[in-house]
Amino acid sequence: MTNNEYRSGCPINLTLETLGDRWSLIVIRDIMFGNHRSFGALLTHSTEKIASNILADRLKRLVDEGLLSKTDDPTHKQKFVYSLTEKAIDLVPLLAHMGAWGRRHLPASRELSVRAELLEAGGPQLWSDFMDELKARHLGTPYVAHGPTVGERLQAAYEAVLASENADHART
Amino acid sequence: MTNNEYRSGCPINLTLETLGDRWSLIVIRDIMFGNHRSFGALLTHSTEKIASNILADRLKRLVDEGLLSKTDDPTHKQKFVYSLTEKAIDLVPLLAHMGAWGRRHLPASRELSVRAELLEAGGPQLWSDFMDELKARHLGTPYVAHGPTVGERLQAAYEAVLASENADHART
Repeated sequence: MTNNEYRSGCPINLTLETLGDRWSLIVIRDIMFGNHRSFGALLTHSTEKIASNILADRLKRLVDEGLLSKTDDPTHKQKFVYSLTEKAIDLVPLLAHMGAWGRRHLPASRELSVRAELLEAGGPQLWSDFMDELKARHLGTPYVAHGPTVGERLQAAYEAVLASENADHART
Repeated sequence: MTNNEYRSGCPINLTLETLGDRWSLIVIRDIMFGNHRSFGALLTHSTEKIASNILADRLKRLVDEGLLSKTDDPTHKQKFVYSLTEKAIDLVPLLAHMGAWGRRHLPASRELSVRAELLEAGGPQLWSDFMDELKARHLGTPYVAHGPTVGERLQAAYEAVLASENADHART
């Protein structure tokens, strides 16, 4: 958007206008934490069952707003890979706070809360490490891993809860 | 909403579904930082020129979601006063991050950025102090002020920038 199209220059308003409706942040969440990088992967793995026309519209909008970049998929002709821009990677602390608030005040499910819990407990240092990893993965900046990455730790914690829930089901 | 009405139990999704569209957070911002507590005050002082039907709808929605409480105005029959609940006051860190992100990445105006800048610079300690003040003002919890409150400091900084801009205009 150009400056004149915003309803005010308040930074909170600008953020809300740029992010648009909730589906835009859901798509960014799935690219950021799930590493789903194509239209098909985002549609198939959508926990909230996003509709294909909404997904197509929000991907286009996010590219237009400079939050995603879109490149050809080298392994599939006629397919595209979506990457987070630095502007989108800078949303990590905001998403961490959204997860923390939702966990505290709303009926969050156990298996979908474990990543939010780790992000909240890790605080600004963990968010910064995670942002460095995302920059390496999405922007190709150099990165040297020391032990498991934050992304791997978040995923492992999520899978551990899933496994323990499956074990609980098997016992009943 | 009841649990079954959410599209998933992910805490980020729950937060986004509960907050609804951007106007809900704009209304919370105006009650929180501007202390506009009635329908009329919110409509008149809306920097983004919210439409009256949207304002009425979002106020109702925010009360239904437990983010605002609505009481009779003792000074005006047939009028109401809106107060933030603890759930809404807990959004201070989220709004601080939204302001910080908008200031960094979007064309924020100088006079509407100064409060976001102070909130960002003050960090978690300032947010916590501000939340204590909001609890005193909106929930009636005891509070002892030591010097100017965070609310007063934010307002004073905003007015100082406005005054300096008016002086600039007067010189040209």
